[in-house]
Amino acid sequence: MSSPLPPALSRLIEAYRSVHDLQAAAAVLSWDQETMMPSQGREARGQLLGTLAGLRHEHLAGAAFADALAAAEDEAAEGEAAQALLREARREHDRATKIPGELTRAMAEATSEGLASWQRARAADDFAIFRDSLARIIDLVGQKADALAEGRPRYDALLDLYEQGSTEAQLAPLFDGLRAELAPMVQAAADCGVEVDEAPAQGQFAPEAQYALGRETAAAIGFDFEAGRLDQAAHPFCTGFAVGDVRLTWRYQEDDFRPALFGILHEMGHGLYEQGLPAAWQSTPIGTAVGLGVHESQSRLWENLVGRSRSFWEWLLPRFRKAFPEHPAFEVDHIYPALHTIRPSLIRVEADEATYNLHVAARFELERRLLAGKLMVDDLPEAWDASYKELLGVRAPSAADGVLQDIHWSMGAFGYFPTYTLGNLIAAQLFDAARAELGDLDAAFARGEFGPLLDWMRRHIHQHGNLRSADQLVQDATGAPLSPDAFLGQLRASAAAVYGI
Amino acid sequence: MSSPLPPALSRLIEAYRSVHDLQAAAAVLSWDQETMMPSQGREARGQLLGTLAGLRHEHLAGAAFADALAAAEDEAAEGEAAQALLREARREHDRATKIPGELTRAMAEATSEGLASWQRARAADDFAIFRDSLARIIDLVGQKADALAEGRPRYDALLDLYEQGSTEAQLAPLFDGLRAELAPMVQAAADCGVEVDEAPAQGQFAPEAQYALGRETAAAIGFDFEAGRLDQAAHPFCTGFAVGDVRLTWRYQEDDFRPALFGILHEMGHGLYEQGLPAAWQSTPIGTAVGLGVHESQSRLWENLVGRSRSFWEWLLPRFRKAFPEHPAFEVDHIYPALHTIRPSLIRVEADEATYNLHVAARFELERRLLAGKLMVDDLPEAWDASYKELLGVRAPSAADGVLQDIHWSMGAFGYFPTYTLGNLIAAQLFDAARAELGDLDAAFARGEFGPLLDWMRRHIHQHGNLRSADQLVQDATGAPLSPDAFLGQLRASAAAVYGI
Repeated sequence: MSSPLPPALSRLIEAYRSVHDLQAAAAVLSWDQETMMPSQGREARGQLLGTLAGLRHEHLAGAAFADALAAAEDEAAEGEAAQALLREARREHDRATKIPGELTRAMAEATSEGLASWQRARAADDFAIFRDSLARIIDLVGQKADALAEGRPRYDALLDLYEQGSTEAQLAPLFDGLRAELAPMVQAAADCGVEVDEAPAQGQFAPEAQYALGRETAAAIGFDFEAGRLDQAAHPFCTGFAVGDVRLTWRYQEDDFRPALFGILHEMGHGLYEQGLPAAWQSTPIGTAVGLGVHESQSRLWENLVGRSRSFWEWLLPRFRKAFPEHPAFEVDHIYPALHTIRPSLIRVEADEATYNLHVAARFELERRLLAGKLMVDDLPEAWDASYKELLGVRAPSAADGVLQDIHWSMGAFGYFPTYTLGNLIAAQLFDAARAELGDLDAAFARGEFGPLLDWMRRHIHQHGNLRSADQLVQDATGAPLSPDAFLGQLRASAAAVYGI
Repeated sequence: MSSPLPPALSRLIEAYRSVHDLQAAAAVLSWDQETMMPSQGREARGQLLGTLAGLRHEHLAGAAFADALAAAEDEAAEGEAAQALLREARREHDRATKIPGELTRAMAEATSEGLASWQRARAADDFAIFRDSLARIIDLVGQKADALAEGRPRYDALLDLYEQGSTEAQLAPLFDGLRAELAPMVQAAADCGVEVDEAPAQGQFAPEAQYALGRETAAAIGFDFEAGRLDQAAHPFCTGFAVGDVRLTWRYQEDDFRPALFGILHEMGHGLYEQGLPAAWQSTPIGTAVGLGVHESQSRLWENLVGRSRSFWEWLLPRFRKAFPEHPAFEVDHIYPALHTIRPSLIRVEADEATYNLHVAARFELERRLLAGKLMVDDLPEAWDASYKELLGVRAPSAADGVLQDIHWSMGAFGYFPTYTLGNLIAAQLFDAARAELGDLDAAFARGEFGPLLDWMRRHIHQHGNLRSADQLVQDATGAPLSPDAFLGQLRASAAAVYGI
């Protein structure tokens, strides 16, 4: 903080601290629930999370906070930070006052229960186990959307929670446009006669060696394990409690190293962002990440734009061989095509760069219909399959690999999926801008030098926390508003290299 | 709950739930801090724990809780549970109103910092690293004692926090009496010419095998791993967030299996109690354990009275051999003396049954002097060594094995240590009563049948939660008030068997 804050604003920050800390404590409890908690702890944990969410809501919506906010707004406060603090505190307070405390508490309990029943349903490959929880969650999410809508469509009120200002009306044409570009590319890849040899990526990969390689890679890129962890969970995720405490999770397949390695690079990208947030503003509304689109851009950057590049693999290959000495040797030229396949797949988090946004498009469509009451929960499994058939031409052999594959709906996160596509587009545009400024990044990657790119992200993205809007951040960092051009350009280049299309 | 509670009492229970949940959430955060948290998470974690403790205090001391309590007290409420709920809620509320919220918050932050600096000091074997934190904690604990004292001695106000109603005036003669009995016994063991052969307990024991054997044993006795965990930590402890979520920690020596095995049995005893608390009263002031003396009785029972018995080892031995196939074979008769040595040692948690209470006596003396201002923190290391020299005739070669060995003071727990000795006495008296009622427990143990003893504890101790006082519980379970007779009788028996004294 360059200059001392005026007194009323300081008191507002102090009032906000309980709000922040209750949220951070809940995040620790949620991480524990998904990585460590014994199964019989479920019910009590749901109660704890409900209580913390309820108390957070009481504080944020309460009279004392409202008074502190009003006093800070009446005070003359100059500078970007002060303005951003007032803006974000006002936004959070208004949102909280619109949502009844009882609904917040009910949602926390329902999603804790939902997470557990989703896990059971997934393990048993039986949607019916999750059905009632999901119906309850959709009902509560609908109530929440209605409370926030103020004349907007229900779904827009939810989109705004994850990416400020985004709307169904803006996103629908974007997805239509991507589909129009991607569908011919997927078709061309299928028709061109090139069969990508995936043998280099397949075989037997001991989980311990996968963990060690993933951890070594994350540490080499710059994830600080004195300020973070990497643990197994049913679903890969990243959660940050502070810049000094960021937790990543991972999962693996024994017969293919890609899900674990790229999953770890993905979550590590989120984690680098969390570790790079402005420590001076920790515990305030501007010490956090900006919307989820930018968050996702950081994960996709390292997962796809770095992690699937030839130059990164020149650095990684000797380490890979050491981790898996039994695996048949291959060269960068052999693995490169297996990292850039274009082929419809079942699992979003393992989808290739071209089809990934089609997975998102399917969810975008389904959740809009669920929220609008046009699709009933009982019909969801069938609608899921139909959507996948239409968009990707595939059908999951099991619910676990189909409608149950994602954690999001069990957590009440409707309106979240579209931020993944925004993340892909932002990542590509940031990467082009960084390369334009920094010069030959490939030579650096091949030497294991990831610092220049990470520093660029620290300077242009991470250190700004939630001070500026996502749109502004992208504009400032790249000199242009967000467009799909960089993403499509990079995708066409790898498609040309692998498929000659 | 046999009958519905009257309305005002129900509202009091509801008001108490946030208090309980904030405490339970803090317990999860503390467990995470000691087992999982990366080192750079320390500062933020201290803030979170401070906030949760502050909020808990606000709720418990606040007007809304006071009103709910007064209304429930004005209502006609019959039955043991209702009376106990009112009594315990009043006790907690009164205590909270006497302690300023700012002090509670400062204490939480100081002890979070204290825990971290204790860990660093212990790792570096340097008391100076812990010195300032400890001085700060003693200052705050003294303020807390003064706030609670109401004319009592400072130290009594602290004792009452851990064991209701216990006083320095009662404990001092008790320790004097134990010292008078134990000192000759220790001397006689040293003089009798018997050298216990500890070779069966020593060698090379792989940590993984020690973990597996400890876990298998705890599960066989009845610890439910669907409702609990066992993880490594710097200091063994047990913490329960709910009857369905009880966490044990352990540590090991590679050259001696006893610290890990008996440490796990000890924490498991605590854990069995936590898993056996009355689920119907969970989240209320009577759903918890009664004072720490009874808690410790449950850990000492399984650690010492079961775990060191011949019959238990008849069951364990084949499992032990399977866990450590390289270890030279031994019979129960060979290991029994090594489980009942009487010999001054440095570390309390690894002390034998005879000298253990002398370790406690040393701490009882030192912490009274620290609190009374008669001993300064700078002089503590020397005073520690002098006390050990006097009571046990030994001197620690390092601070880590001396004054830094226990976690308690770093957590602000002064007045806690005497409950260990109470626990030893209660365990012995309960065990005699259970054997009198259940008959030949040794035959059951040898067959691996621990259920009868566990069920007896469930019926007489666990299921009563905090409904009755510890004194009443012991009286009801054993038909007599607490005395050291059972403890000394059992100790004399094993001393006679091993040393012929």
